[in-house]
Amino acid sequence: MATEYSPLAADVYSHASLEGSANQHAQDTADWRGSTSSASGVAGTAPDHDSKPSKKIYIVVGIFFTVLIAAGVMMCIMLIDTLTDPEARYAHLKNFCSHVGPISKAELSTRRARLAEEMAHADVDVFVAEAGSTLFYLTGAAWEQSERPFLVVLSRLDNSSADPRQHEYLVVSPAFEHDKAVEEVGPGVSLVYYQEDQSPYAVLTKHLGLDAGTGAHVVVDRDARGFVHFGLAGALAPGHTASSDNGGALVRQVRGIKSTAEVAIMRCANLATKAAIRAVLESVKGSTTQADVSARIATALEIAGLSNTWSIALFGPNAAAPHGIAGNAGLRLTKGMMILLDAGGQLHGYQSDITRTVVWPLGATTSADGPEHFARTTLVWETVRDAHIAALAAIRPGALASDVDAAARRVVQAAGFGGDYEAFTHRLGHGIGIDGHEDPYMNRGNAEEIQVGHCFSVEPGIYLKDEMGVRIEDIVCVTNSTAPYYELFGATSYLLQDPLKDH
Amino acid sequence: MATEYSPLAADVYSHASLEGSANQHAQDTADWRGSTSSASGVAGTAPDHDSKPSKKIYIVVGIFFTVLIAAGVMMCIMLIDTLTDPEARYAHLKNFCSHVGPISKAELSTRRARLAEEMAHADVDVFVAEAGSTLFYLTGAAWEQSERPFLVVLSRLDNSSADPRQHEYLVVSPAFEHDKAVEEVGPGVSLVYYQEDQSPYAVLTKHLGLDAGTGAHVVVDRDARGFVHFGLAGALAPGHTASSDNGGALVRQVRGIKSTAEVAIMRCANLATKAAIRAVLESVKGSTTQADVSARIATALEIAGLSNTWSIALFGPNAAAPHGIAGNAGLRLTKGMMILLDAGGQLHGYQSDITRTVVWPLGATTSADGPEHFARTTLVWETVRDAHIAALAAIRPGALASDVDAAARRVVQAAGFGGDYEAFTHRLGHGIGIDGHEDPYMNRGNAEEIQVGHCFSVEPGIYLKDEMGVRIEDIVCVTNSTAPYYELFGATSYLLQDPLKDH
Repeated sequence: MATEYSPLAADVYSHASLEGSANQHAQDTADWRGSTSSASGVAGTAPDHDSKPSKKIYIVVGIFFTVLIAAGVMMCIMLIDTLTDPEARYAHLKNFCSHVGPISKAELSTRRARLAEEMAHADVDVFVAEAGSTLFYLTGAAWEQSERPFLVVLSRLDNSSADPRQHEYLVVSPAFEHDKAVEEVGPGVSLVYYQEDQSPYAVLTKHLGLDAGTGAHVVVDRDARGFVHFGLAGALAPGHTASSDNGGALVRQVRGIKSTAEVAIMRCANLATKAAIRAVLESVKGSTTQADVSARIATALEIAGLSNTWSIALFGPNAAAPHGIAGNAGLRLTKGMMILLDAGGQLHGYQSDITRTVVWPLGATTSADGPEHFARTTLVWETVRDAHIAALAAIRPGALASDVDAAARRVVQAAGFGGDYEAFTHRLGHGIGIDGHEDPYMNRGNAEEIQVGHCFSVEPGIYLKDEMGVRIEDIVCVTNSTAPYYELFGATSYLLQDPLKDH
Repeated sequence: MATEYSPLAADVYSHASLEGSANQHAQDTADWRGSTSSASGVAGTAPDHDSKPSKKIYIVVGIFFTVLIAAGVMMCIMLIDTLTDPEARYAHLKNFCSHVGPISKAELSTRRARLAEEMAHADVDVFVAEAGSTLFYLTGAAWEQSERPFLVVLSRLDNSSADPRQHEYLVVSPAFEHDKAVEEVGPGVSLVYYQEDQSPYAVLTKHLGLDAGTGAHVVVDRDARGFVHFGLAGALAPGHTASSDNGGALVRQVRGIKSTAEVAIMRCANLATKAAIRAVLESVKGSTTQADVSARIATALEIAGLSNTWSIALFGPNAAAPHGIAGNAGLRLTKGMMILLDAGGQLHGYQSDITRTVVWPLGATTSADGPEHFARTTLVWETVRDAHIAALAAIRPGALASDVDAAARRVVQAAGFGGDYEAFTHRLGHGIGIDGHEDPYMNRGNAEEIQVGHCFSVEPGIYLKDEMGVRIEDIVCVTNSTAPYYELFGATSYLLQDPLKDH
């Protein structure tokens, strides 16, 4: 391209290889000019200038067009660059996680066996979950919730095996979705169908023999909607009992402990999210909007191979509401302003979740609001960073979830921002996996012990109304009973001027 | 643009107005050529050709560049056109519904008063719904469901007024989302906050005085998740009762009867969806993929102003599964193939939902699979159309929901495709509003009476495995107790060759 359109090369072509073709054009166009020149006063004056052709004029005209072509081509390239910008700018993110595969069928089977063990311990005969994250965890089916229940059922009724893991595994599906159900759960799975005018609960209880008899204990997943829970409970013969896994006792213990394969997926999803955030921060221009930055992150995440992406971009004082408010969404970016970016997406059904708060542009050491404001920004940011470090240091198997929250909150309190929810208005973190937020929660009220296999966010924040909001969020997985206890995906954020340095 | 870049006009510019500027360029470029010509053997040969300048060569060179510019500009325009295609092609859809406003605050208040009346009839003291469509219906807040409950509460406890509509109206929110909650529900609404380590249920029951005493009847929305239902039930003092609005008795009666404002929103959303489907069908090229058609519809719907859009495009035998399967997603469009398009989106929180099955291209009267296949296609399509017409004819206040389903199914049976779920594998239709599928369902099992204000889909279908699938879906609202009983948004589909004729 560069050679073909440089003024010099174009000049050469005009003299050499293309002359014949140009002559033909000249003839065609001359004929046409002849028939129209009388209608064009300006064109009619041209022959006066043409009457004294010279080398100089010839070069002038040639070069004029050459420059015009070059300018046109450059404008065209610039326009195309703008239109196709994201693909080009985030090209290095492509195939970021192509080396990471989804959860295997064998692992799905292991999960069901583990849940069956928990059921045996808790003396539960039947466990039922509807479409959602627990069903995806047990079946691999990403079925969308609708008014027509789609259920996974583990049952140990009438099971002669002494091995508690030998449970019957069923999926209940609308009959007309037969082909889709088989495609989602795979061949060989026992499917129970109900027609449009049948009760799925009646069909299921009849299949399990629970429309008669007594004594069976049915537990329904805590996330099941009320009409599913009570529909099923109502279809049981009166001698059976139904209850909710309200506290998550059955499922939490199983889903909460991540496998190597799960950690591998979440590692890559979170590294991709950090890389996407960095790429966007490096490309953001002044006076842009939150919506623009947010859209760029979504694009970068999608190019990195994540689906169902989401992102929150908050400028300056807008970050004082942790998830933003629409109120001042029109605010534009100026030098020295803080940007809070909270983003994530899905890889093989697992969520990522990363937050960075930076001063724009990366490396800035001054603010348009003056040195005092910048010093204050730095103090708040460094307090959050220190709280983050303190929380990480508190993570170990056997520590309580509330300990990790407390470790961060003490740092915030020591810096004068309050030890309750005054400025650090939310919990330290949340478990993460198939759900973006799931057990265990790093919360003051949570006396649950941290275990190897737990994955959760560490995300202290300080929010000062009408002034600023700072949050730093990483995802960690507890991997060892001896130090180092956890893996943090990528580096954390140690320097306000380059909080993504190590990615 | 056309004049500016025509060969003639460009020629004129070169002789007249731009000569001075061209001269300057010539000078600059000549200097540069001088300093580089020694490095370019080809450039060095140019003077030989330049030594005999003539009018003819001058015209030749000028016209050659003119043609080159014109070609470059055209390529550039074509490329830009391709890249920006959707905006241009669906430009007529812009602002399609800009004349339709959202539901007013006054109407939200009326809804709560209507629900309070239903509560009084059913002797319910407190009604609680969590984030979702019922909460949106009552508050206008589009709050996303998370592990932190966000609740709307209507309570008639300790109310001295004789008017049952004078209920206390509360919203329960996480404390750290304070600003966002106020923004969503509006100022003046009573908000009850809970901190991260507090139970929202304990905070609410204490606020309502239900942590002591006896006799209050609390009803929880049927869509509330189990942990919300049982969390709340568990926080009540033992003398109170909690139950689920499992059958939808409380809410269904209120949400099921649409207001004029609701009908206006749904009318425009569905007309926009029909217009988008037409626009896409007119632009679809042969050998495209289902994914491409689906993406085009999403784009068209978004340009028409709908959000959260979705679309299903199924070619030929793929439509035999009503919502498609991934199995043969790579199938490409050929002449005479049927396309099933099912699409919708959201306008001011209300859903649209339209399905058309057409032979591609529009107007085709032959199929690449031969005349017999085309005759079979026509038979199936016309059976579904006749079933659609029969269902519409059965709609009137006082008719049963099951009557409407039966009317369509009889037509399918008479054509030899079975009177049960053999080919017409699903119910006739579903209610629609804030949820894409909601009460009332036009289902064989449903003895509910149709009332003025009901809005639902009429969507018979015939699905023949490995062969084809046909569905025609319109949305109707029952508007009158005398004929015409209902309004159908836009026209329905009477002609296989142009099933969108009247839009």
